[in-house]
Amino acid sequence: MSLAFTIAELASLTGAESVEGACAGPITGIAALAEATPADLSFLGNAKYADAVASSKAGALLVPVAFAGKPASGQAFLRVGNPSYALALLCSVLEARLWPRPSAGIHASAVVAASAKVDPSAHVGPLCVIGEGAVISAGATLEARCHVGAHASVGADCWLKSGVTIGDYCVLGARCRLQSGAVIGSDGFGYEPVNGEIRRIPQIGNVVLEDDVEVGANSTLDRARFSKTVVGRGTKIDNLVQIAHNVSIGRQCLITAQVGIAGSTTLGDHCVLGGQSGVAGHLSLGDRVKLGAQAGLFEDVPADGFMNGTPAVPFGLERRLVVLSRRLPELFKKVDSLAASLDSAGR
Amino acid sequence: MSLAFTIAELASLTGAESVEGACAGPITGIAALAEATPADLSFLGNAKYADAVASSKAGALLVPVAFAGKPASGQAFLRVGNPSYALALLCSVLEARLWPRPSAGIHASAVVAASAKVDPSAHVGPLCVIGEGAVISAGATLEARCHVGAHASVGADCWLKSGVTIGDYCVLGARCRLQSGAVIGSDGFGYEPVNGEIRRIPQIGNVVLEDDVEVGANSTLDRARFSKTVVGRGTKIDNLVQIAHNVSIGRQCLITAQVGIAGSTTLGDHCVLGGQSGVAGHLSLGDRVKLGAQAGLFEDVPADGFMNGTPAVPFGLERRLVVLSRRLPELFKKVDSLAASLDSAGR
Amino acid sequence: MSLAFTIAELASLTGAESVEGACAGPITGIAALAEATPADLSFLGNAKYADAVASSKAGALLVPVAFAGKPASGQAFLRVGNPSYALALLCSVLEARLWPRPSAGIHASAVVAASAKVDPSAHVGPLCVIGEGAVISAGATLEARCHVGAHASVGADCWLKSGVTIGDYCVLGARCRLQSGAVIGSDGFGYEPVNGEIRRIPQIGNVVLEDDVEVGANSTLDRARFSKTVVGRGTKIDNLVQIAHNVSIGRQCLITAQVGIAGSTTLGDHCVLGGQSGVAGHLSLGDRVKLGAQAGLFEDVPADGFMNGTPAVPFGLERRLVVLSRRLPELFKKVDSLAASLDSAGR
Repeated sequence: MSLAFTIAELASLTGAESVEGACAGPITGIAALAEATPADLSFLGNAKYADAVASSKAGALLVPVAFAGKPASGQAFLRVGNPSYALALLCSVLEARLWPRPSAGIHASAVVAASAKVDPSAHVGPLCVIGEGAVISAGATLEARCHVGAHASVGADCWLKSGVTIGDYCVLGARCRLQSGAVIGSDGFGYEPVNGEIRRIPQIGNVVLEDDVEVGANSTLDRARFSKTVVGRGTKIDNLVQIAHNVSIGRQCLITAQVGIAGSTTLGDHCVLGGQSGVAGHLSLGDRVKLGAQAGLFEDVPADGFMNGTPAVPFGLERRLVVLSRRLPELFKKVDSLAASLDSAGR
Repeated sequence: MSLAFTIAELASLTGAESVEGACAGPITGIAALAEATPADLSFLGNAKYADAVASSKAGALLVPVAFAGKPASGQAFLRVGNPSYALALLCSVLEARLWPRPSAGIHASAVVAASAKVDPSAHVGPLCVIGEGAVISAGATLEARCHVGAHASVGADCWLKSGVTIGDYCVLGARCRLQSGAVIGSDGFGYEPVNGEIRRIPQIGNVVLEDDVEVGANSTLDRARFSKTVVGRGTKIDNLVQIAHNVSIGRQCLITAQVGIAGSTTLGDHCVLGGQSGVAGHLSLGDRVKLGAQAGLFEDVPADGFMNGTPAVPFGLERRLVVLSRRLPELFKKVDSLAASLDSAGR
Repeated sequence: MSLAFTIAELASLTGAESVEGACAGPITGIAALAEATPADLSFLGNAKYADAVASSKAGALLVPVAFAGKPASGQAFLRVGNPSYALALLCSVLEARLWPRPSAGIHASAVVAASAKVDPSAHVGPLCVIGEGAVISAGATLEARCHVGAHASVGADCWLKSGVTIGDYCVLGARCRLQSGAVIGSDGFGYEPVNGEIRRIPQIGNVVLEDDVEVGANSTLDRARFSKTVVGRGTKIDNLVQIAHNVSIGRQCLITAQVGIAGSTTLGDHCVLGGQSGVAGHLSLGDRVKLGAQAGLFEDVPADGFMNGTPAVPFGLERRLVVLSRRLPELFKKVDSLAASLDSAGR
C-alpha cells in the first residue's frame, strides 16, 4: 500500500488539537505501539498502555490531549480528544483511498440476462453473472465473479466482494456488504424418511437481508422451506456462519465466526452470539440475548439472558459449575476421607 | 415470486377431498398459521396447533378431513388426508415452476476442454469450466461458474448450483445435488514432520459420491491420500461440513451443518450426526449411529449407538451427567455439611 | 486414473532392495491391506498390521526388508527400508503425473488488468481475474476461476487450485498452496456500538502468507484492521478454518479443520490446534503449544503447553476431570449413603 502522509496531513485528517515534535520522513503505515517503526503511526487507545508509549519507535503517535508524556527525538505527538476515534477517522479516509468505488458500468466479460435491470450507476465487475429478472440497484458494486440469481434483487449501494453468490429470488436491502464466498439462498436442509429412503422437502422460500446487513466470507444462509429466512437491519454476520432455513434474526445483532443457527429459530434485536456457538432449531431468543463462545443452546431464552456452556445454562451458573468441576479431585478425596472417618468411628 | 393460485387450482394440486368457504383473491404465498395473511395458504400440520387455526388470517388452509373447525368469512378450508404431505405436493409443483430445468446446451461463455464429453441433453451454464477428459452425463444441470476438473465425471441428472467445484478425477453418481460453493476433491490434510519441517504427503486419490447424494453450500470433501473418499447412496450433507481424506460414509446418512469427520473414519448406513459435532479419525461407526449436536466422538460406536457430549458417551449417561453436574453446588454444600457434622460428632 | 505399473517399475520408483514373487497383471491402484485387490499395491506401514498381510489380496506389497512373511501365489513383495516412505516416493511420482504443471501463459478467457505483472512462466487459468497492479511470480499456477485482487502478490511457484480468492493488497510468499474456495483477505469483523447502531471499523490492513504456507478449502483469513494478519513460513491450515484480523501465526504450525482463531491472537512456532478447536482473541500462545480437538481456549499458554476441554485446562487435568465427572453418579450415591450413616449414627 503506497500511502504516505506528512504530520500536517495526519493532523488535519485526525482533527488533532496540537502537534508536538516532528518525525524524519513520511508516515506510511499504522502499527501497535510495540511493533511500530519510525515510518508508522501508532496510538494510545487505552490508558493502561501509557507506559508503552515511551518505548515505542513510532514516528507519530495519537495521544490524548492531557497525556503527560513527551515525544522522543524524531517523533511527533498528535494530541486528540479520543485517539481511537481519531484513528478510525484516518482509517476511513485510507479505506476510501485503498478501495475507491469502481466506475459505473458492466464489465464486458459479465454475463447479464436480457431481462435483468442493472442501474446505470451500478458497477458489475468481470465475469459476474446476473440472472433473468434480477435487479441491481443504484450505486451497487459487484466485484469480480459474483452471481446474482434469477429474480434476485440487490439494494442500493450494496457492496459484494469478489465471488459472492445471491440465489434466485433472494432480496438484499440497501448498503449490505458481503464478503467473498458468501452464499445467500442455498437450499434449506429439509428431508423426511420415506420407506427407509431420505426424501428431499422442496425449499421454495427465499432469503431477505434488510438494510445495512453484513455477511462474512464463506458464510451460508439457507432459503426458507417456504416464506423467508430473514436477517434484520444492521445485523453483522462474521465468516463461516451457518444460518438455516426459516431462521429470523432481529436487528443490530452480532453473529460471530463459525456460529450455526438451526432451522426456524428466532432471535430478537441486539443479540450477540460468540464464536463457534450453536443454537438448536425452533427456539426463541429475546432481545439482547448473549451466548458465549462455543456454547450450545437448546432452550428458549428471554430478553437479556446470557447463556454459556453446552448445554447452555445462565452465565453465572456456568461460571460456578466450571469452578466446581475443577475441584472434583478435591471433592472425591474429601468424600473418601469422610467415609474413612465414619468407618473408623463406627468401629 | 409471482405465483397466484385460485382455490380450485390449489384443491387440484393438493388432492383436496373437499373445499369449504372461499377467499377474496388469489393465493400468492405460503405461511405459518400465525403469520399468514389473506393472500397466503397455511396448513394444520400438527394437531397441537389446532387452536391457532381460528385466529389465523390465512386466505386458505389445508386441514385434515376430520378437522372440527369451520372457515372464517373470506377463508377457504381445503380438507385433505395429510396436510403436510399435501403441502409438500404443492411445494414440489411450485419448485418445478420456480426452478425450471434450464435448456440443454453449453453457454457460449463456458470454457470446455476439447476432450471433455458433455451429453447434448446436459446444461452447462455461463462461465463454467470443464476440464480435459471430464464427462457430463445426460440431463445434468450445471448452473453458472461451476468447475468440473480434468477426468472428473458428473452423473445423469445431477444438479450443481452456481459456483460448485468438482476436483480432478472425482466421480458423482446420478441425481446428486450440490449447493453453491461446495468443494469436492480438495487435497487431504496429510503431512509428516521431517527434520523440524512439515512435509506434505501427496494426496492422489479421489472422491466418489454415489447416486442421490446431496452436499450443502461451502462444504468440503477431501480427496483420499490414495484410493477414494466415499459418500454412500442417498446420504445428505448440510452446509459447511468437512469430510476428511479416506472417510467412508454409508448410505442414507444425514450429516448436519458444520460437522467435521476426520481422516479414514468409516460410517455405516442411516447414521445421523447433529450440527457442529465432530468425529475423530480412524474410527468405525456402525449402522444407525446417532451423535448429538456439538458432540465430540473419540471412540468406535457399534450399530444403533447414540452418543452425546465431549468426549462423547452414551446418550443416557450424558443426560444423567448433565443433570448431576448442575447439582454440583448442592453436592459441595452437602459434603461440607457432612464434614461439619462428623467433626462436631467427633468432638 | 489410467495408471499402470509393472513390478519392475514399482521396484525402481520405490527403491526396493529386492523383489519376491510376481503378480499376474499391471498394478493400477493403491489400497489398504484389507481392501486391496490383485490389481492394487498395498503396504505394511505399521508392524501391528503384520497379520493382515497374509490375508491381503494385494497384487504387490511394500514390506520391510526384514519382514518374515512370504508372498502368496500371484503376489509380489517389494522389500524396502521404510514402506511408508517408499509409498510416499511413489505417490509423489503419481501426483506429478496426475497433476502435471499446466503450460505457461494466460488463458484467453482470463481478465488481467493492464497494470498487472504476470511472469511469462506463470500459468493463469480460464476465467481468472487479476487486478490492477497485482503480481504473479515465476512458476505460479492459478487454476480456473481464481481472483487475485488489486496490488496483491502471488509468490514464485505458488499453486492456487480452482476458485481461490486473494484479496486486494495481500501477499503470498513462495510455494504456497491454496485449495479451492479459500479466501485470503476478507474484511476483519470489527464493529463498535454508536447510539444503538453497530458501526463498522474500517479494515485497511492485509494478509501475509510467508513461504510454503498451505491453506485448505473454503478457509477464511481476514485482513488486519491495520498492519497485517500473518501466517508464518511452512504453516499448514486445513479446510473451513477461520483466522481473524491481526492474528499472527508462527512457523510450521498445523491448524486442523474448522478451527477458529479470534482477533489479535499470537501463536508461536510448531503449534498444533485440533479440529474444531477455538482460540479467543488477544491471547498469546508460545512455541509448540497443542490444543485438543473441540477445545476452547480462553487464556494465554506458555511454550510446550497442551490444553484441552472448554474452557481449556492443561491436558492431564482435563483427562482427570473427564474420568471423575463420569463417576458423578457414584459420588452422589456415596454422599447420600454417608449422610444416611451419619444420620442413623446420630440417632
